[in-house]
Amino acid sequence: MKYHKIPDEAVRRLPFYLRGLLPLSEQGRKNISSHDLAYLLGFNHWQIRKDFSYFGSFGTPGMGYNIEKLIRQIRKILKLNVVRKAALVGVGNLGLAVLRYPGFRIYGFEVAAAFDNDPKKIGRKIGNITVEDVSNLRTLQKRKIDFGIITVPCEAAQQTFDALVRAGVKGILSFSPCHKTGPEKVKVITIDIAMDLVRLPYYTPASRAAKG
Amino acid sequence: MKYHKIPDEAVRRLPFYLRGLLPLSEQGRKNISSHDLAYLLGFNHWQIRKDFSYFGSFGTPGMGYNIEKLIRQIRKILKLNVVRKAALVGVGNLGLAVLRYPGFRIYGFEVAAAFDNDPKKIGRKIGNITVEDVSNLRTLQKRKIDFGIITVPCEAAQQTFDALVRAGVKGILSFSPCHKTGPEKVKVITIDIAMDLVRLPYYTPASRAAKG
Repeated sequence: MKYHKIPDEAVRRLPFYLRGLLPLSEQGRKNISSHDLAYLLGFNHWQIRKDFSYFGSFGTPGMGYNIEKLIRQIRKILKLNVVRKAALVGVGNLGLAVLRYPGFRIYGFEVAAAFDNDPKKIGRKIGNITVEDVSNLRTLQKRKIDFGIITVPCEAAQQTFDALVRAGVKGILSFSPCHKTGPEKVKVITIDIAMDLVRLPYYTPASRAAKG
Repeated sequence: MKYHKIPDEAVRRLPFYLRGLLPLSEQGRKNISSHDLAYLLGFNHWQIRKDFSYFGSFGTPGMGYNIEKLIRQIRKILKLNVVRKAALVGVGNLGLAVLRYPGFRIYGFEVAAAFDNDPKKIGRKIGNITVEDVSNLRTLQKRKIDFGIITVPCEAAQQTFDALVRAGVKGILSFSPCHKTGPEKVKVITIDIAMDLVRLPYYTPASRAAKG
């Protein structure tokens, strides 16, 4: 089966479905209704049914959706049915936080290498990972590491981005808004926490904020 | 003018417009076309025109949009026309990265306080901020701090969330998927970096990933 018509907004929701379904599967639960899943995730049940219909999962009336099958399908669509490896560049506070984040493995993702240009950081062990010199980035292809994570300061972002592209990665998760996105064949997802923080006041009622 | 009908997806884009427009304004530029702004941001120009029309900005043929006016309008809609203050809870690696992130001020946002329950961290200075004991969270209202940022480990997330709600914050930016979202009147935006990372393989062509 082909999955050509899944809109980007639905693709964005697929990891959240996985996040909700995996613990249920671990608890041994077999089925879930779109209503229960909607409640669990804070989504709309009609949205869930629509998203699932994109990949041909329609549930059984009175039974709901088979959890294992859903997980398998979502993993397949997201291409997470094999272990995916990422290399992190920039072992500062943010880099350390990402390296120590325990939540990737469950999705079949592994941060498998870390790089920095600071001699004081190179050689340091963080969990199973030894920090390497950025010049080693060229070994990524050979090591089957297809993805990069950028956690360097702003001024180093562009050269890091370029180095990852040269190293042949297929996708980059960047925590820096300080670089161009480069060649179209490399998918870039940027997380700028300011973009989320500054949306918060919009949702608040009349304010007690101080005049600036 | 009221701004009742702006869809959530457009609200999500408003900070990105601000991010693109602010440097142009600093450079002294007066106007920009939707096409140029689209190119700058990687958005669709029709999307931009539609979003701006929600708040009554239509541009002038041949001139484009007035940059200062757009910035003023977006700030007003996002309620960023006064300084907004946030308190961060959890001064680990991620907390330090957020505290040292220089990118909030330009939008009128300030991380004004930081809290931890570790005696070794309490009293430590990070920039202008002295880390306080979490019991001080009850002072937030008096200090006109309306927002909370959660950067604690998973096991401390729920109690931190509850403490922030009790402290009267109106919105929470959370880096933890490990808590319920609580009362509806408190807006919660959650950043789970795994949700972005695991979307990357979807966009890649045939893979060289190792069988897991």
